[in-house]
Amino acid sequence: MNRDIYQEPLVSRYTSKAMQQLFSEKKKFTTWRKCWIALAESQYEYGLTDIITAEMLHEMRANCENIDYDIAAAKEREIRHDVMAHVYEYGLKCPKASGIIHLGATSQFVVCNTDLIIQREAFALIRSALLQVIKNLADFAYKYRQLPTLGYTHYQPAQPVTIGKRMTLYIQDLIMDLDYIEMFLSQLKARGAKGTVGTQATFLELFKGDHEKVRLMDQRVAEKLGFSDTFAVTSQTYTRKLDMKMAETLAGIGASAHKFAVDLRLLSNLKVLEEPFEKNQTGSSAMAYKRNPMRAERMTGLARKLMGLAPNFGVTFSNQWFERTLDDSAIRRMDIPQCFLLTDAILKLYMNITSDMVVFPKQASRHILAELPFMATEKILMEAVSRGMSRQDIHEIVKEHSIAAGRTVKEQGRDNDLMQRLADDDRVPFSIDELEDIIADQSGFIGRAPEQTEEYLREAVYPLLDRYEGQFGTQDSIITV
Amino acid sequence: MNRDIYQEPLVSRYTSKAMQQLFSEKKKFTTWRKCWIALAESQYEYGLTDIITAEMLHEMRANCENIDYDIAAAKEREIRHDVMAHVYEYGLKCPKASGIIHLGATSQFVVCNTDLIIQREAFALIRSALLQVIKNLADFAYKYRQLPTLGYTHYQPAQPVTIGKRMTLYIQDLIMDLDYIEMFLSQLKARGAKGTVGTQATFLELFKGDHEKVRLMDQRVAEKLGFSDTFAVTSQTYTRKLDMKMAETLAGIGASAHKFAVDLRLLSNLKVLEEPFEKNQTGSSAMAYKRNPMRAERMTGLARKLMGLAPNFGVTFSNQWFERTLDDSAIRRMDIPQCFLLTDAILKLYMNITSDMVVFPKQASRHILAELPFMATEKILMEAVSRGMSRQDIHEIVKEHSIAAGRTVKEQGRDNDLMQRLADDDRVPFSIDELEDIIADQSGFIGRAPEQTEEYLREAVYPLLDRYEGQFGTQDSIITV
Amino acid sequence: MNRDIYQEPLVSRYTSKAMQQLFSEKKKFTTWRKCWIALAESQYEYGLTDIITAEMLHEMRANCENIDYDIAAAKEREIRHDVMAHVYEYGLKCPKASGIIHLGATSQFVVCNTDLIIQREAFALIRSALLQVIKNLADFAYKYRQLPTLGYTHYQPAQPVTIGKRMTLYIQDLIMDLDYIEMFLSQLKARGAKGTVGTQATFLELFKGDHEKVRLMDQRVAEKLGFSDTFAVTSQTYTRKLDMKMAETLAGIGASAHKFAVDLRLLSNLKVLEEPFEKNQTGSSAMAYKRNPMRAERMTGLARKLMGLAPNFGVTFSNQWFERTLDDSAIRRMDIPQCFLLTDAILKLYMNITSDMVVFPKQASRHILAELPFMATEKILMEAVSRGMSRQDIHEIVKEHSIAAGRTVKEQGRDNDLMQRLADDDRVPFSIDELEDIIADQSGFIGRAPEQTEEYLREAVYPLLDRYEGQFGTQDSIITV
Amino acid sequence: MNRDIYQEPLVSRYTSKAMQQLFSEKKKFTTWRKCWIALAESQYEYGLTDIITAEMLHEMRANCENIDYDIAAAKEREIRHDVMAHVYEYGLKCPKASGIIHLGATSQFVVCNTDLIIQREAFALIRSALLQVIKNLADFAYKYRQLPTLGYTHYQPAQPVTIGKRMTLYIQDLIMDLDYIEMFLSQLKARGAKGTVGTQATFLELFKGDHEKVRLMDQRVAEKLGFSDTFAVTSQTYTRKLDMKMAETLAGIGASAHKFAVDLRLLSNLKVLEEPFEKNQTGSSAMAYKRNPMRAERMTGLARKLMGLAPNFGVTFSNQWFERTLDDSAIRRMDIPQCFLLTDAILKLYMNITSDMVVFPKQASRHILAELPFMATEKILMEAVSRGMSRQDIHEIVKEHSIAAGRTVKEQGRDNDLMQRLADDDRVPFSIDELEDIIADQSGFIGRAPEQTEEYLREAVYPLLDRYEGQFGTQDSIITV
Repeated sequence: MNRDIYQEPLVSRYTSKAMQQLFSEKKKFTTWRKCWIALAESQYEYGLTDIITAEMLHEMRANCENIDYDIAAAKEREIRHDVMAHVYEYGLKCPKASGIIHLGATSQFVVCNTDLIIQREAFALIRSALLQVIKNLADFAYKYRQLPTLGYTHYQPAQPVTIGKRMTLYIQDLIMDLDYIEMFLSQLKARGAKGTVGTQATFLELFKGDHEKVRLMDQRVAEKLGFSDTFAVTSQTYTRKLDMKMAETLAGIGASAHKFAVDLRLLSNLKVLEEPFEKNQTGSSAMAYKRNPMRAERMTGLARKLMGLAPNFGVTFSNQWFERTLDDSAIRRMDIPQCFLLTDAILKLYMNITSDMVVFPKQASRHILAELPFMATEKILMEAVSRGMSRQDIHEIVKEHSIAAGRTVKEQGRDNDLMQRLADDDRVPFSIDELEDIIADQSGFIGRAPEQTEEYLREAVYPLLDRYEGQFGTQDSIITV
Repeated sequence: MNRDIYQEPLVSRYTSKAMQQLFSEKKKFTTWRKCWIALAESQYEYGLTDIITAEMLHEMRANCENIDYDIAAAKEREIRHDVMAHVYEYGLKCPKASGIIHLGATSQFVVCNTDLIIQREAFALIRSALLQVIKNLADFAYKYRQLPTLGYTHYQPAQPVTIGKRMTLYIQDLIMDLDYIEMFLSQLKARGAKGTVGTQATFLELFKGDHEKVRLMDQRVAEKLGFSDTFAVTSQTYTRKLDMKMAETLAGIGASAHKFAVDLRLLSNLKVLEEPFEKNQTGSSAMAYKRNPMRAERMTGLARKLMGLAPNFGVTFSNQWFERTLDDSAIRRMDIPQCFLLTDAILKLYMNITSDMVVFPKQASRHILAELPFMATEKILMEAVSRGMSRQDIHEIVKEHSIAAGRTVKEQGRDNDLMQRLADDDRVPFSIDELEDIIADQSGFIGRAPEQTEEYLREAVYPLLDRYEGQFGTQDSIITV
Repeated sequence: MNRDIYQEPLVSRYTSKAMQQLFSEKKKFTTWRKCWIALAESQYEYGLTDIITAEMLHEMRANCENIDYDIAAAKEREIRHDVMAHVYEYGLKCPKASGIIHLGATSQFVVCNTDLIIQREAFALIRSALLQVIKNLADFAYKYRQLPTLGYTHYQPAQPVTIGKRMTLYIQDLIMDLDYIEMFLSQLKARGAKGTVGTQATFLELFKGDHEKVRLMDQRVAEKLGFSDTFAVTSQTYTRKLDMKMAETLAGIGASAHKFAVDLRLLSNLKVLEEPFEKNQTGSSAMAYKRNPMRAERMTGLARKLMGLAPNFGVTFSNQWFERTLDDSAIRRMDIPQCFLLTDAILKLYMNITSDMVVFPKQASRHILAELPFMATEKILMEAVSRGMSRQDIHEIVKEHSIAAGRTVKEQGRDNDLMQRLADDDRVPFSIDELEDIIADQSGFIGRAPEQTEEYLREAVYPLLDRYEGQFGTQDSIITV
Repeated sequence: MNRDIYQEPLVSRYTSKAMQQLFSEKKKFTTWRKCWIALAESQYEYGLTDIITAEMLHEMRANCENIDYDIAAAKEREIRHDVMAHVYEYGLKCPKASGIIHLGATSQFVVCNTDLIIQREAFALIRSALLQVIKNLADFAYKYRQLPTLGYTHYQPAQPVTIGKRMTLYIQDLIMDLDYIEMFLSQLKARGAKGTVGTQATFLELFKGDHEKVRLMDQRVAEKLGFSDTFAVTSQTYTRKLDMKMAETLAGIGASAHKFAVDLRLLSNLKVLEEPFEKNQTGSSAMAYKRNPMRAERMTGLARKLMGLAPNFGVTFSNQWFERTLDDSAIRRMDIPQCFLLTDAILKLYMNITSDMVVFPKQASRHILAELPFMATEKILMEAVSRGMSRQDIHEIVKEHSIAAGRTVKEQGRDNDLMQRLADDDRVPFSIDELEDIIADQSGFIGRAPEQTEEYLREAVYPLLDRYEGQFGTQDSIITV
């Protein structure tokens, strides 16, 4: 690591090796060669055998990974054109084929198709990590499906939910992300061999005006590069609209993770749920005892950045002029890798956290007990209505007393005396015993939370995980905080 | 119109009545009543016949649209709660049912379900307009599939395309938008009857612990409201993640329209393509002759705003704490209508423009002629390679002469003399006659553009429009500039 | 209020009448007339007395507010040009002057100058409200400058601060906002009389080539409109860069308010600090006892929207082509009022909340007591170092025990036993009595918080408020939640 | 360069060495040491001579740059705390001082102060480059202050301006950026020595309750670090609001550059103005003749990214909870360097382009000539009004004919015949000779453009450059495209 100049923290600190490699020069330039091979083979197969020979193809395939980067870089400095520099270097390795490499193609033939291939592979990594997080959350949700914990609206105590039920909400969000990944992959097609402005003019010339052959060759190139289809029409590039959808799909994951992370940070304050804490980890230089939710805080920040990248792609797409302007180049060169690297970093954290979260049931219970009299008011309302009171009337009475009880707690630091207040009020048709009975039955406050959790896991989540069997589970989620 | 205070321009200037109505108080409050009716009916059907009677249901249905807004507003000012105010007002109209309206429900039961219903209907309007734009563009593309026009990369002349082929790129973008609308609609489900924090605790109580009945009732409410399914799990609200996808889907349309509008504004400068210009329209106070592309400029600005709204929803979703915080309320109240109204305004413009665009073939041709010698260089390169020259060598020679010819044009205002320069160069294996021949055959420069256009329209666009037969075509696209 | 179509909630719900009026048609069109009067007067003063007469000027001044909006609107529908429509209508009222209204001007003469005048007035309203909030916070900070409350980092207990000291942080942020308002106002100048593309060509003609007179007239118009200066150079409009700074300045206020609001929402959960709660306000339909921080939640949402608007202006500015494109029109028409209205709404809430916040000292104390043993560790570290231990060693020991004590609390729900654990450890050079002494002296934990608060208020805040004496204090901060 | 993993393109491609170094680990860690030295010296000066000795201070100063990064990194891996790891490593180098390094401080003492120091230095680099751009533009503007070129509104021909006058608009924008840089620098203060939550509790203890000494020491530390002042109040960190302003200030430069770059790209299409083109630069693989405005396109993309970063800082600031949450860490670690590096890259390009722009006067003239009859209409309107026609009447007549003439050009590709059409119309009080006279006098169409340019340069720009004499002019603006 060079300490004299800026180093990108995404690489030096947060991301997995696999994702870093996908966006390396090596990956890019070898994929360019795969594109050139696919093109030459397809041209050969559809009849350009007077120009292209089997020997040339063999030579090209043999040298796919045989790149002398220094020669290419030197050539690029000279002619200021990266694609032509690599055509040149490939030609040095393939003297026989040197005249037919990139035949009829424009730079974006290799650049666009390579972008698409890398994104396809990057999404496979992302999906794999996402599934692992879903799996972790599902197992955790199942384990704690019955453990009551205080539910909050306005971050004020509402009714209890269960630890597990709350987890299903995060899972549902992630499954929506997964659905959009699949949607994106269904939209992702090869850019194929379309020529300078998308008209395939040069290829039509090469194939002496045979439209059908040009069309088939285009499709063949796509297949050789692992795509089932090509974009029907392109300009010089595939539509930059696709980038916008890519970024939104990843930002969706960021947003889901952010929502989870913020909740976790609040739960950490409440001492109900904590992220794993590594041995030897120092809370802070001065406050050793603290269990700072640093992973969740980092997730929050990384997700914020990821979400902040998405709009860029819309601006770029919507400001492309005609067949293409190059204001997309520098920003895509930074933002596409950043989107994937950030998502990778976030999911690494999400996997790590969900693999070993710590629950404190006594604390969960403590919070409920302090609010139970308040929370029982809905039950009391219902019960009173069933005894014939108007909902409006009992609502008013209960409101009045609960505000008073709330004040007692806040202003005098005393215990919650709501039940006694209600029992003492003649308008309320319950004795103190009846009221205490209502509170005593704690399981009645969590409604269908355990059942909802079980149903959702059984009917939606585990079947989905089964469908992706074998496509996840091996990611590296070791992180440093 | 009240001229003493601010008036929202989206309503006063840009949008269709149909969309304005969807986001009216009337639509909202009558839909709330439909939700209450669906709830009461479902509760009745699954057995709460001791509390709810057929007569009550009849009364509720009869008064669905019978709202005294002033009473509700007065009550809201008093109790500061809009849902309870409308429960009260509905109760005045339905004295028998007054005790069972909203039974077991929380405010978000009506608020969320109504939001979802309105969004479903709003997307139907949007889709209809979008299809009409696609239709307009497809017909226009077919008509001009063979008319050559200069293609640009870097906004510098590249190779020619055709007017029609370029239109297919806009269509392809819009079809991607359409695909994402369908995707969104497949994700949109009822929020159903889930209770205060999503546990259905109150409903479980009402149904005396019968889980199956609560589940069925939830599903039944959804069906009555026109949904095939409900979200399996919710917090107090349906996941705000869905909002994010809604906004991205609409922003996608904005971005597609923006790209089109910017191109049109450039074409207007080039005098190749113009938007319709109304009789009596004044270009500007001082420059009467101008044909300002004001619709396209307005589209650009509206689309920019629409795209700028999307990130808000991600921030809201990702900062929701636990079962819900109310920092979503004011912003959703503004941004959801704005998203749909902006999209409506943009599509109105897009329909209007594409229904009557003006092409100037002589200008299109003039631009090509000025650049034809340059554009022939690719052909010359190909031809020279086929005569045995190395691509690199001929590339260098042609480059040298074309730069010189370019200078002649720019610096001396003279005609393009590239062909003569090449003919005079001994290294170039072509006579001036051969070179002129290359230029003369203009149809050879547009490659497969006409065929691509036809194929795409025939194989993708018209079949799609057929599938949506009857779901579009009647929108109002009269606009004022 | 029309309930059949969408109504902008900013107006119907959140903002002050004064701000709504600033962005009304009435304000706009009467200000246009003021611009026309200023122009005609200045032209007259610098010598166009052959064309313009004192009688005409008198007529124009007399009819400044005499606008028949329906006639203007009808004319606009006919000629599709709002400025010319109002020139026409003004001409009807001023038959003598009708030929010289708008003489030599382009539409943007009235549009830009009016925009700038309205923004200047809007900023005065904003500044006034901002100062009131600072005042409220300052008084509150002074009152509670000594009341300890738990400080948090990572939202984990850190060391105590005081209620008042924390308030100074919000004040400091708002003063930075105020500084940027003043900075903006120093950048805001008249657009003046610059002509169609900024060259003043028509005016130069009117003044028969007298450059000096054109320049002086331009300056004179500015002065008549209340500006000390004009932009030295403009295109058709004043630079859209200024809009960007306007929006950022307001977004800054939004961000400051958002930070405060989020803290308040957390404090509300902690029961330490609450926003005012109105009589008759209903917490929620089902949970009457709740003291939901709804104002703070609304501030959060409004601020999010405000912050989300700022980027639009940068995109508009940076995409203006040459002397002006009209993609700025629709978006500015919406976003400029929205920025000011949102800020107005936020400051109304901020004034309201800070005028009557409720502190619960017993709760503040309770939170500190639970963490006091932990918080004393820094003191213990310092003390041990002063007794000769290495900071590293004692850090490790304290860390070990505080983690164990933390676990006791979380896992067993028992009291914090850290002091006893330390006393029992031979490596620690303190007896239990010494340790308890350290805790007992609570005032030692808040450091200089009271003094910092006093110093800051005395040296920075109150002097600043004095400088603005008379410019604030009368705003309407009555709000509805 | 490691080609196996992702490399940040900002560093490998676009930025200056000086800026890269500012954000290096070396710069960061040596500045941390400077902070520790300043702290120890100040503590010593204000009386902690029983703990701190002159010898210790000498040792610390001597080892300021003597860092063994590998030891620090290994320690960090062990204890997971970068600041404590460097305290440890510094202690190894300074055995005598090891116990007093970082005495009473929290991590943010070094982190925040270092951030602020680096930003101050980075802004100096930015300002220097910005001034050079202003200088280049000013010289260019002066040179071409009289050269007419077509002005555009709606990107439709309006009236002519001059090349130089248009440049003054870009200068004005950049001077506004400069003003905001100075504003920012006036807001930037030291974070100073404030302690864990900003209360200076530990320092108060060290100074045995002497408030004045703590205050003076805080100020002294600031001075030693080159600041004239410290923030009066801080939480654990200086307010994150400052970051927001930093990012907006830089984004402003991005926006100004973007506006310029887009205009330049359009001018490049019009062949009126071109960026420099390097020898050996290859336009594209297939189109050698093209003079692609690649620098301006790159500026556009980089500026888009820069502008897209600014909102992140507002989100971070406004979501900081209480005295600090660590969701700011990862995103600031990436976004602060990115903001400065992007601005650096943009200004490098801007300097490069403006140092050698190519004007084509013949092309500028050609565009004016084609539109001159149209552009004369304003003159004709004015002249006709002065001959007694009503502005409305002549406006209508001219409009009618100019629309017809416009059609002739567009539809028939013929020359502009507007003058003849007007002469042939009896209602128009001018002969063809009079009309041709109006056109012939070309200098009359540019109004005060040359004078405005001169005045602005003389009165505003050059005096400003004089004030900054010696603070700019040496930047490296060599770039690779």
